[in-house]
Amino acid sequence: MQNFKITIQYDGTNYHGWQIQPNGRTVQGELTKALSLLDHRPITVYGAGRTDAGVHADGQVANFFLERDFDPTLLRDAINGNLDRDIRVHEVVPVSDEFNARYSATKKTYRYRIWTADVVSPFVYRYVYHYRERLDLEAMRCAAASLIGKRAFTAFTVASSDAEEHVRTLIDLDIEAEANETSIIASADGFLRYMVRTIAGTLIEVGRGKRTAASVVDTIESLDRGTAGPTAPANGLTLLCVDY
Amino acid sequence: MQNFKITIQYDGTNYHGWQIQPNGRTVQGELTKALSLLDHRPITVYGAGRTDAGVHADGQVANFFLERDFDPTLLRDAINGNLDRDIRVHEVVPVSDEFNARYSATKKTYRYRIWTADVVSPFVYRYVYHYRERLDLEAMRCAAASLIGKRAFTAFTVASSDAEEHVRTLIDLDIEAEANETSIIASADGFLRYMVRTIAGTLIEVGRGKRTAASVVDTIESLDRGTAGPTAPANGLTLLCVDY
Repeated sequence: MQNFKITIQYDGTNYHGWQIQPNGRTVQGELTKALSLLDHRPITVYGAGRTDAGVHADGQVANFFLERDFDPTLLRDAINGNLDRDIRVHEVVPVSDEFNARYSATKKTYRYRIWTADVVSPFVYRYVYHYRERLDLEAMRCAAASLIGKRAFTAFTVASSDAEEHVRTLIDLDIEAEANETSIIASADGFLRYMVRTIAGTLIEVGRGKRTAASVVDTIESLDRGTAGPTAPANGLTLLCVDY
Repeated sequence: MQNFKITIQYDGTNYHGWQIQPNGRTVQGELTKALSLLDHRPITVYGAGRTDAGVHADGQVANFFLERDFDPTLLRDAINGNLDRDIRVHEVVPVSDEFNARYSATKKTYRYRIWTADVVSPFVYRYVYHYRERLDLEAMRCAAASLIGKRAFTAFTVASSDAEEHVRTLIDLDIEAEANETSIIASADGFLRYMVRTIAGTLIEVGRGKRTAASVVDTIESLDRGTAGPTAPANGLTLLCVDY
């Protein structure tokens, strides 16, 4: 048995998210099918992050054990040969048995893209949230800075989340602005369900002037989901990379 | 009556090209429908370049005459409201009656994208031709330089082309290389049918070492389509911009 680590890109538009489901096409489901065909037995695929329906990945990571011996490059091409073109395995690396894509991860980085120009390009509309009004970037940066650190992010996850504890370390939260878009880049040791999208929805409200930058400190201290902004739409979110 | 010039982006993947057809969804057809609804009468849309099925546009230009009076920005939003998201009007400018998107054009620029990395990203596969072997960029640049100028491009268009004369001025033909892709950027006062794609197919053969850079001079002088390379696939081609 060999443990393999893979790096995956996907356009999440046509998927019901990462996690395998009895009904509905998922990224984990497609990978499981492709690998089970190659190893002639049911394979379990462990993913670093369970991205929601419609969320994309530039550098998702997963691992799995195969009985058959494979050259990594040939294995990459064989998996891709059994997948649609909106999921691509970019790299296959043999790793030690101890490696687990989820539990070995030290940092995950997500990007939330907000398209700020009047008209959304046909080449990006699948990957951005369209907000055409002006955003106050300085206020957003100020609010973002106050979220960084080790905290209970209870106010920024679903009320029904089954996470037993809500403490995460938000390592970086940057606002990057280009001509047509503004991005929120978030790095943490882990994220709660909807956490990046709720942070994005809250920072957008700060950028619109609907809430003050200072109010975000109260929001996080309230531990109450009702005090944060809305969950921003899934299609604006991309899992950029996972560090080990 | 007011003549309007519009600049349009489209993802050509799901279109049977620019030109209106009795059957099949085309970009000109979709624009004609949207505008005819707005002006309550059949509108004729004049396009700068008749892109083929599967070809994309970053800056296609068209013009049309409307009887109703429109604010340009409101007209832009009204047209977009009647189009799918894979076609977007970016700009609407009122112009003099003499302006014609096709006949007033002085230069058109196309980009042919060749994806050279082993694996094609799910975010670009619709817009690139995948060629994973190494391309000799210096040989391609040398061959490209020999095509520049005012010439009969008979060898680089379809044998059945109805163009009465095949002389065009190729103003620039550049090869740009990035980490994962190589692009051919072609500017001319006009292009014959399949001309950019046949130039791309021929330059790719030079890059692969299948023909020499010097042989391209013989190809153009032959005036014989049979001596050029294959027509490269449509989806790698994008109309970048039109100058007036």
